[in-house]
Amino acid sequence: LLEHDEQGLREFSDALIPAVAAEVLEGLDPRQTWEVLSYSSPQRQAEIFSYLSIPAQVAIVDTIEPERLSRVIEEMSADDRVDLLERMDPEHVEQLLRYVAQAERADIRKLLSYPEQSAGSIMTTEYASLPSDITVHEALERLRLQAPTRETIYYIYITDESRHLIGFLTLRQLIQAKPSAKVGDIMQREVIAVRVDDDQEFVANEIARYSFIAIPVVDNQHRLVGIITHDDAAEVLQEEATEDAYLAGGVQPLDDGYVNTPFFELTWKRGMWLVILLGAASLTAQVLQYFEHGDGGNWMILFLPMVLASGGNAGSQSATLVIRALALDETRGRVRWIAWREARVGAVLGLVLAALSFTVARMMVDGQAAVVVSLTVLMVVAIGTLAGAMLPLALKRLGMDPAFMSNPLIAALSDMLGVVIYYNAARHLIGLF
Amino acid sequence: LLEHDEQGLREFSDALIPAVAAEVLEGLDPRQTWEVLSYSSPQRQAEIFSYLSIPAQVAIVDTIEPERLSRVIEEMSADDRVDLLERMDPEHVEQLLRYVAQAERADIRKLLSYPEQSAGSIMTTEYASLPSDITVHEALERLRLQAPTRETIYYIYITDESRHLIGFLTLRQLIQAKPSAKVGDIMQREVIAVRVDDDQEFVANEIARYSFIAIPVVDNQHRLVGIITHDDAAEVLQEEATEDAYLAGGVQPLDDGYVNTPFFELTWKRGMWLVILLGAASLTAQVLQYFEHGDGGNWMILFLPMVLASGGNAGSQSATLVIRALALDETRGRVRWIAWREARVGAVLGLVLAALSFTVARMMVDGQAAVVVSLTVLMVVAIGTLAGAMLPLALKRLGMDPAFMSNPLIAALSDMLGVVIYYNAARHLIGLF
Repeated sequence: LLEHDEQGLREFSDALIPAVAAEVLEGLDPRQTWEVLSYSSPQRQAEIFSYLSIPAQVAIVDTIEPERLSRVIEEMSADDRVDLLERMDPEHVEQLLRYVAQAERADIRKLLSYPEQSAGSIMTTEYASLPSDITVHEALERLRLQAPTRETIYYIYITDESRHLIGFLTLRQLIQAKPSAKVGDIMQREVIAVRVDDDQEFVANEIARYSFIAIPVVDNQHRLVGIITHDDAAEVLQEEATEDAYLAGGVQPLDDGYVNTPFFELTWKRGMWLVILLGAASLTAQVLQYFEHGDGGNWMILFLPMVLASGGNAGSQSATLVIRALALDETRGRVRWIAWREARVGAVLGLVLAALSFTVARMMVDGQAAVVVSLTVLMVVAIGTLAGAMLPLALKRLGMDPAFMSNPLIAALSDMLGVVIYYNAARHLIGLF
Repeated sequence: LLEHDEQGLREFSDALIPAVAAEVLEGLDPRQTWEVLSYSSPQRQAEIFSYLSIPAQVAIVDTIEPERLSRVIEEMSADDRVDLLERMDPEHVEQLLRYVAQAERADIRKLLSYPEQSAGSIMTTEYASLPSDITVHEALERLRLQAPTRETIYYIYITDESRHLIGFLTLRQLIQAKPSAKVGDIMQREVIAVRVDDDQEFVANEIARYSFIAIPVVDNQHRLVGIITHDDAAEVLQEEATEDAYLAGGVQPLDDGYVNTPFFELTWKRGMWLVILLGAASLTAQVLQYFEHGDGGNWMILFLPMVLASGGNAGSQSATLVIRALALDETRGRVRWIAWREARVGAVLGLVLAALSFTVARMMVDGQAAVVVSLTVLMVVAIGTLAGAMLPLALKRLGMDPAFMSNPLIAALSDMLGVVIYYNAARHLIGLF
């Protein structure tokens, strides 16, 4: 690269598979990346460019003059370019759009107008569609013409003159059909579609459920406005899984992944949760102050971390299970069924852990004290299990993200409850206070 | 159903999209499900059957005589039936295979022989392939014949006479090419393929990375042995995300999801972790016993839960981030880079939390005690952050699953460390002991 070997650079971009070329380029700085790309055709540039990570794309567009950039934007697929423009400075986008051809500009503005996380925001307008009154032979001819500019031609959507979605056909069905048959006669009339304002996670789950390559997106008059392809759906599911994992670990979700998030943002998104959790823990300290007057047996402090951890762990487990079941759409609103099940699991786990903690405590302290420890463990585990399952369901009912009930938050709540139970058990069982 | 409305039942199975029919049937018991299915053709039966969950499939096959079941098995796609057979009682499988046609039987035995979690275990042998020396016109004719029995015909693999994978072509390229062109001249020669013994998570990430509809699987002589399609890859990624979420929450992964796992298994897979964590917590009790002689200030107990929770939370955060980055293959072995980054994040977070906890403690106790609390928080947060990131990387280096270092386990380790730091800080700072 340093020697500006033009011939070599052109070969690099043209010979490699775009995804592989993009990976090599991720190692370079933005200017160098663009320099390498500038040796190939706009189509090729757009293709490789789309495979770069969004932060890398944003860094590069800042170094290119709008006029050259607009050629790349025009060649990018409709959904990829909107993903990029959404992350760019709005002023920069306006400046850029002036150089973009009229048709593409209208399409971009339309897609940019859909709310984040909606089907509209991840769909592409480059779908293959045909009328119903032509023959299979004609259909194949038209598809050949459509092919170069469509995201996929394997799923073909049949629309009437006002773009209403009236049928569906796969390319497999089309090439197996008699050339003289009418499209309208061989198409499937029952088409599974999503609405442009459906949530992207719902859409991604639908595609996974039916093993589709793509799903059509319609407006509220059932007119076809776009499609969402399997690869974008898989990406949504991965993003949602990552977001849930982050929340479970008590980290505010990162938009660009661990590696690409800048230091300050990374620290802030962790720090804010740690501060909230510290606040919750300081309440536990105050509850402890209320109960603890130094006249409680010295033995109580020994088992405090164990008692509190047991409740937190049990709660984290059931929250994890319920949050994941909600993400995979397994529960179908069976709230009572879950509550009853968790109550029973909690009872069994509580009894087992109580027995074990009695044994552990008895090795270090007298029988009465061991009874207090084991009874507290029984209660915090049973209550923690049930509450850990119910809290995410309650958040969902309130229209919030159930994953928000993170493991550390449950542990914090359980700590407070645990202190109250522990000291009350001691007071009532051996009259310590 | 109770009235054995034969006509209605046949219409039910034939009219609905298979995935939808399967969902309706999931609500019935195994005998009823089979009764409904028995009214339609074996092809249709196999299609709907494949969309049922594996536990439901297993329950149904136990109620059908092997001869009738063998017809369904023959009609199922190669990968779906192997998923089912892997979960059935081996004796039952042997009995069943006697009724299955010779060709299918050989294929099944072959696929069953690949190790779990390998590419071979999730691939299907029903791929579309062509020789390189035919014309595009001939190729389309042959594809028409192959279409009914192939998982996909959109990706076509070109093989030589000994089945070596020598090229690749999409159906889109094929229908755009001149009918008289030779397949060998228009095919891509550089084919991205995976090995039959590659890990399924690696394969799924490859498919996602290239946005493929399918990826070819080759043996160690580069002969084509199968393909893995995008929907199966997406399922693998979802399963791996679920497994990681479970481990993070301290639950041993469930094979059948939360809803389908029986009560006993669910309780056992949670109980075993709670017991391990209780064991770890009992060590903390012993460490506490070593330090705590009742002569420590009574104030120390107040902040114990807060100090311990801070270290655990900080550790859970960095473990979560690193485990997810490893799953998404973001880190590319940059261990030092991660360590240095986490050391800095830990220092910043430790200082912020130390300042806040000093303020909190100072409201309840004297200045010296508050210094002990805040200094301990500084240390447990800084060390917890670094250790939380390094432990999963160490597990990975040892060839173990990094997700095994779950949040509760990190919290347990951090509790022990926290006690040691807390009491040592008190001893050295205000000479309490």
